[in-house]
Amino acid sequence: MADGTGGHKVVIIGGGFGGLVAAQSLNKTPTDVTLIDRRNFHLFQPLLYQVATGALSPANIAAPLRSALKKQKNTRVVLGEVTGFDIAGKTVLLKDGARVPFDSLIVSAGSTHHYFGHNEWEEFAPGLKTIEDATEIRRRVLSAFERAERATDPTEQARLLTFVVVGGGPTGVEMAGAIRELAKYTLRADFRNINSATARVIIVEGQTRVLGAFHESLSARAKVALEEMGIEVQLDCHVTSIGAGHVLVKPDGGKGEVTRIDTETVVWAAGVKASPLGKLLADALGGVTVGRGGHVPVNPDCSVGTHPNVFVIGDLASCPDANGKPLPGVAQVAMQQGEYVAGAIVRRLKGEGPKGPFRYFDKGNMATIGRARAVAEAFGIRFSGHLAWFAWLFIHILYLARFENRVLVLFQWFFNYVTRNRAARLITGERSTDARGTK
Amino acid sequence: MADGTGGHKVVIIGGGFGGLVAAQSLNKTPTDVTLIDRRNFHLFQPLLYQVATGALSPANIAAPLRSALKKQKNTRVVLGEVTGFDIAGKTVLLKDGARVPFDSLIVSAGSTHHYFGHNEWEEFAPGLKTIEDATEIRRRVLSAFERAERATDPTEQARLLTFVVVGGGPTGVEMAGAIRELAKYTLRADFRNINSATARVIIVEGQTRVLGAFHESLSARAKVALEEMGIEVQLDCHVTSIGAGHVLVKPDGGKGEVTRIDTETVVWAAGVKASPLGKLLADALGGVTVGRGGHVPVNPDCSVGTHPNVFVIGDLASCPDANGKPLPGVAQVAMQQGEYVAGAIVRRLKGEGPKGPFRYFDKGNMATIGRARAVAEAFGIRFSGHLAWFAWLFIHILYLARFENRVLVLFQWFFNYVTRNRAARLITGERSTDARGTK
Repeated sequence: MADGTGGHKVVIIGGGFGGLVAAQSLNKTPTDVTLIDRRNFHLFQPLLYQVATGALSPANIAAPLRSALKKQKNTRVVLGEVTGFDIAGKTVLLKDGARVPFDSLIVSAGSTHHYFGHNEWEEFAPGLKTIEDATEIRRRVLSAFERAERATDPTEQARLLTFVVVGGGPTGVEMAGAIRELAKYTLRADFRNINSATARVIIVEGQTRVLGAFHESLSARAKVALEEMGIEVQLDCHVTSIGAGHVLVKPDGGKGEVTRIDTETVVWAAGVKASPLGKLLADALGGVTVGRGGHVPVNPDCSVGTHPNVFVIGDLASCPDANGKPLPGVAQVAMQQGEYVAGAIVRRLKGEGPKGPFRYFDKGNMATIGRARAVAEAFGIRFSGHLAWFAWLFIHILYLARFENRVLVLFQWFFNYVTRNRAARLITGERSTDARGTK
Repeated sequence: MADGTGGHKVVIIGGGFGGLVAAQSLNKTPTDVTLIDRRNFHLFQPLLYQVATGALSPANIAAPLRSALKKQKNTRVVLGEVTGFDIAGKTVLLKDGARVPFDSLIVSAGSTHHYFGHNEWEEFAPGLKTIEDATEIRRRVLSAFERAERATDPTEQARLLTFVVVGGGPTGVEMAGAIRELAKYTLRADFRNINSATARVIIVEGQTRVLGAFHESLSARAKVALEEMGIEVQLDCHVTSIGAGHVLVKPDGGKGEVTRIDTETVVWAAGVKASPLGKLLADALGGVTVGRGGHVPVNPDCSVGTHPNVFVIGDLASCPDANGKPLPGVAQVAMQQGEYVAGAIVRRLKGEGPKGPFRYFDKGNMATIGRARAVAEAFGIRFSGHLAWFAWLFIHILYLARFENRVLVLFQWFFNYVTRNRAARLITGERSTDARGTK
């Protein structure tokens, strides 16, 4: 796999925020970079919920990795799945038997859904991590309205028009807001037998507030905003079962009476765990134990254990901040780590000493709740409402600026904002949509 | 299913060009319209090849049916699959057991791929009729380049970089042109081990010219344009086998020696047959026999047999023109028939006599070959090159004007034209893309 240029071989696993930024930061350095990913595109995950609710198309929030890196002469992209690490032989093993040699290794394989030991829930409550997840959720949400339109039994109709989002973090809040807007505005005139605006959207959150990573005052404001939109927010409420047509919850921190919510559409936004590559790497390295959730503990410079040339970044890493608290699994952390690690590798090549430990520069936190509603906090300042929403929009456009299709996204957003339209509300991926409409 | 408004019940099957226009033409008439489709969107099929080659997203060329008809108070959309007709009972039967009563019935169920008795070819040579077809072809085309990049055997690499389009009609010509441009321009800087511009694109056509529906001079010009783009055009050449890794063809009108083309990617653009609903309807009506290809023969007013209240339009119908030649299966015919039949129903309700037989007004024919290359003929005038391409662009934008997202399509086209970009080149729909990269 080496191209023989003789540069220091850096292998990056994962083309998410951390991996892509690491690769970009190694442009024009004396390195020979190989970026390995299972998919041929970088995905802007924070906007995946907009695909799941028909506002954006998958291509609007995905950039082909080759395209993003095509001008970078020292970098190649390998579409492949990593199945193992040969640390002594300094080689990454791929599923097709190929071996990719490295001098430095950056693992940025991200995270996946976590059902807390209830994998049987996944069938009924898909999470939102991939393009396929998003189009599947879109299919379920839109099909539920279609089936409700056809249903003759009021009980069935009510069940079909009930949407449950498990988890009140940013993804859950965003999903719930988008589904509610879809029901209340976009679909309003679409049906003849149902009034889509009567659809119930329920957030079930285990903690005592939504947006637990934000300041309490913003959680409170977000809850008010959600309720103003007509979303039911059930806090301190544990999910005990998800099955065909229902969700069982226990309120009062799991101590209350079990309550049944009749629903056909559940979205899982409650938990993530690290990619299984974390454990695979830890085992190959030896002397490293992944934490609960599968995260790989890293040294202050993002290297792992006694291996200065092996780095783990992004969601996969468990990296303490200056106070020893683990950093959150957000894009900003991954991107900053990608840049930091690339810099560390280049400094080392130049014979320079380390620059000091990785320090996360927290630019703030924001979540959007619906059309022109958001909460944000940055540098101790907290704001909400229109201002926060415009800040959210601005920052996302700015980040999408790395993408070639940012202008289209802006255009589509503006169009959707003005018209409350969601043109991408296609039910695709399953040929017999009608079969689902039958009982 | 009747809503009790007491209007004349018109049931339309199929939300393609014919069915949608029929429904729209019945707006504000004393009818009670039910449009039944298996999918929740109208698809602008002529641009499907642009989705298959990553230039447009599915949502750019699809409009939710409910959205297109939401302001039409007398019209409902039913997402369902028709499984039978009860002609005596004036009822359409749906797969889920529902029965939809009609006073007048318009069947516009369109066409599907036709492998001329070789259904085993479908696996290796998907056609281009649905969104799923298009994303599957996109996946295959892009994956072939990915696999070629990884391949070490030159023979395998050459096979992976060979793309065969079976059929030299408008769809085949457009697909071939788009694949060639993808290889030559869009992907040029993407790979490190292969030169994507060396990819072979071959059109295999059974007739002695491409674009057989056009004037011979335009067929000749189209062939020159294709060859200038580096596309190989094999005319008078019959396909005798399509299997894993190969296509076998017999040149010289099927009388030549069998030649083997090593390829991993074949697109079927050679033939269509009518939807099986045609035969189902003919059998239910009695006394009607579908033609070769499954088309339903219709009376001069598009009604069928002795049933003045049952109409078949679009690709599903075999409708003679003034000279007795069957009309082509193009969008224009379907749309004009949709409008004509809607008018005929309304006239009858008013007690007015028929307006005369359906007459197709041929506004011309055009096919695009690549960036700024096209051929067109209208009212005896034939033109090609830039002018034809701009005419093609203008007319398609005009037709897309019925869609809410036309502006975005225009924008995306312009963007792609300037940058030769195809931002939607995502490999989706199959999780283990890597598995396909292995041999």
